[in-house]
Amino acid sequence: MRLLIRDVEKAMVEKPEEPIELAGWVYRIRELGGLNFVILRDRSGLIQLVVTEKPDLSLESVIAITGIPVRNEKAPGGIEIQVHSVNCISKADKDIPYRVNGDLSRIGLETVLDNRLLSVRNPAIQAIFKVQSTIIEAFSTYLRAQDFTEIRSSKLVGSGTEGGTALFAVEYFNKKLYLAQSPQFYKQTMVACGMERVFEVAQVYRAEKHDTPRHLNEYVSLDLEMAFIESEKDLIELEKAVLIHVFTEVLRKNSSELALHKATVPDAAAVERSPIISYEEALRIAIKESGNARLFDISPEVERLLCEWSMREYQSPLVFVNEFPRRHRPFYTYPLGDTLTMSFDTLFRGLEITSGSRRQHDYQAFIEALPRFGLKPEDMPGYLTLLKYGCPPHGGFAIGCERLTQKILGLSSVKEASLFPRDRKRTNP
Amino acid sequence: MRLLIRDVEKAMVEKPEEPIELAGWVYRIRELGGLNFVILRDRSGLIQLVVTEKPDLSLESVIAITGIPVRNEKAPGGIEIQVHSVNCISKADKDIPYRVNGDLSRIGLETVLDNRLLSVRNPAIQAIFKVQSTIIEAFSTYLRAQDFTEIRSSKLVGSGTEGGTALFAVEYFNKKLYLAQSPQFYKQTMVACGMERVFEVAQVYRAEKHDTPRHLNEYVSLDLEMAFIESEKDLIELEKAVLIHVFTEVLRKNSSELALHKATVPDAAAVERSPIISYEEALRIAIKESGNARLFDISPEVERLLCEWSMREYQSPLVFVNEFPRRHRPFYTYPLGDTLTMSFDTLFRGLEITSGSRRQHDYQAFIEALPRFGLKPEDMPGYLTLLKYGCPPHGGFAIGCERLTQKILGLSSVKEASLFPRDRKRTNP
Repeated sequence: MRLLIRDVEKAMVEKPEEPIELAGWVYRIRELGGLNFVILRDRSGLIQLVVTEKPDLSLESVIAITGIPVRNEKAPGGIEIQVHSVNCISKADKDIPYRVNGDLSRIGLETVLDNRLLSVRNPAIQAIFKVQSTIIEAFSTYLRAQDFTEIRSSKLVGSGTEGGTALFAVEYFNKKLYLAQSPQFYKQTMVACGMERVFEVAQVYRAEKHDTPRHLNEYVSLDLEMAFIESEKDLIELEKAVLIHVFTEVLRKNSSELALHKATVPDAAAVERSPIISYEEALRIAIKESGNARLFDISPEVERLLCEWSMREYQSPLVFVNEFPRRHRPFYTYPLGDTLTMSFDTLFRGLEITSGSRRQHDYQAFIEALPRFGLKPEDMPGYLTLLKYGCPPHGGFAIGCERLTQKILGLSSVKEASLFPRDRKRTNP
Repeated sequence: MRLLIRDVEKAMVEKPEEPIELAGWVYRIRELGGLNFVILRDRSGLIQLVVTEKPDLSLESVIAITGIPVRNEKAPGGIEIQVHSVNCISKADKDIPYRVNGDLSRIGLETVLDNRLLSVRNPAIQAIFKVQSTIIEAFSTYLRAQDFTEIRSSKLVGSGTEGGTALFAVEYFNKKLYLAQSPQFYKQTMVACGMERVFEVAQVYRAEKHDTPRHLNEYVSLDLEMAFIESEKDLIELEKAVLIHVFTEVLRKNSSELALHKATVPDAAAVERSPIISYEEALRIAIKESGNARLFDISPEVERLLCEWSMREYQSPLVFVNEFPRRHRPFYTYPLGDTLTMSFDTLFRGLEITSGSRRQHDYQAFIEALPRFGLKPEDMPGYLTLLKYGCPPHGGFAIGCERLTQKILGLSSVKEASLFPRDRKRTNP
């Protein structure tokens, strides 16, 4: 029976001197003093094999071995396997065009992504997606425990809900549809219809042309929407709780993945301490932090300044900015007075990871506000139906899954946190 | 503090005679002998309100009430609320174009779907998506417990992996991409790279023109792939375990939703008893069952016949059909002899819900087989990279989420199990 690498030590203690069977990928080969040291990789970790006979092995070949585990202080992890037999299950061609075990700090991001089918074999890169898997799980699990229902809404829509953003067109039989830029309308529909609390984890699409370390044209959005809230502050409280659960679970399940990236997650107290500041206050703080630079919006530079300020003043890597001006937020946002909104953004380690708001649930107020956004009621029959026949106060937010992954692990670009990223130039693999 | 309807009985027992607060949607209004009976709906259920003063209410309005819960055998559920005060939070317009509380057996599917934004307010329709939420959760939870990692792969691809099926084209900046018909290549990549066990729950797209109760052009696929299997029989065992967990969880969490549809789930023993028959055997059985009809393929009619046979002979609503001829399966399927494959389909209550197989992991054998499928190695550089540099034996399957939902609840069409279904004609809402 095949054993996983992570279970070798336990097997050794329970049945010392007994041969074990491992299977995995050849991660490294080194010859030293007549002995061959092979680092084997499986889904659970790495371990050193000592092979006396020179094996005909190539890097990344899949092998199964039997041998006796022994302690050796010099071996990585303190254990190595004295190998009896090696069976090559799938021999890797030696012309491999990418060094899987290469030093990632010396391999540029473009090379990593160009060779994605091979670079993702590297343990540190795989670690990114193990952490991402935990993020998705923790987000879902926390919300289910709060009585949220998971939904799956169509990604093929007749038009965008947000306005402003460019959309990708789809040839749908003899019609033109668009890839949804968010499940906004659908999640509001499900709340209005009485499901009250819904979440969705799915791809969304933005046909924006900028190619930056902050942007992807296809990304995974951790979306939620809930009824019977009073203001965006209820949503901020919920997001704090969601993030605490995500961080706790990543720490519990992915400590070795965090270690590979020398990363840490904030503890619950740090999340609780994070300040909520208004948009106006945020700009004032950023101007002061920057030494009186002329700042007019929550730009990437301002996001960084605010997080530095929060770290210094509150020992928290998070800042919630609320009360955005109405002109900065979509038409469905609930107003606060005449010029502001019950909205917020969440900044984490210098990057916006979340946008959320209470939504306008009043039919008359919705219709009256549309002209401010250059919209007409007849442009949005769906929203009219949603609001006209009984709709509770509600709101929601969306966390960018790749951005959260990036910032947890300290990655330099959001593209590193997408398995097969799509940007303006990258459409393959 | 607002109470959920499902918690009223508990509150009544713990604090009798104490007023409670409820909020929800007006589902039904009836006047009888000077009293007004209102059925209130919230995310947790329905309850009867008794209002003495004639309230100015319309169906589907959102209201908050206070009142005293009392036992009344004649009330649905045995409890009603003697209402003190009603506060209308969102008044529904009386011109509502769809009867939310109408008898679904008398409302045609087209009407239900045309009015999706309102029909989904009906408890029996919402129940479908609560069950679906549990299916997705149970699928994910079971696999995570088996050390599977959840992945999210791009839905924008350069070409299809399956071949044969039509694809929807996307205008991606100045390129033409396609909506992925399955995460097949990506999940195989992650297995080959050493993640070993992955799953993905995401939309897939088929640009097929047929418009039947079995087909959707956009559906949610419950996909998995795993390394180190010997044959499709390992996958069948895994699927049995997954389905047992799904059925158990649906029964545990959604008994009231099942009741609304008069539906039952198979027990573990029935799943365990389900037969595995070869493609050839399946045809033989179907021919016999049909009274010697001329049957040449696993058609919808054959799927029904085989499930009837299994129900009679094994008291199981499931049949696994394996060893499909090579010409019926995609190029990446692992052969069995010269003409068959290590593949299977799962039939449940008369419908194919799953397709799976061991995959060809041998680079040479893969290349040599391509001409049989009219393919050339240069057409699939991705697969060559995947297989050339160390790839373990592996396989996987995909369950159609809407089909599984449909068959659990006994729905007449798969479209009923899609929140916002997309078919040839239906692109809205």
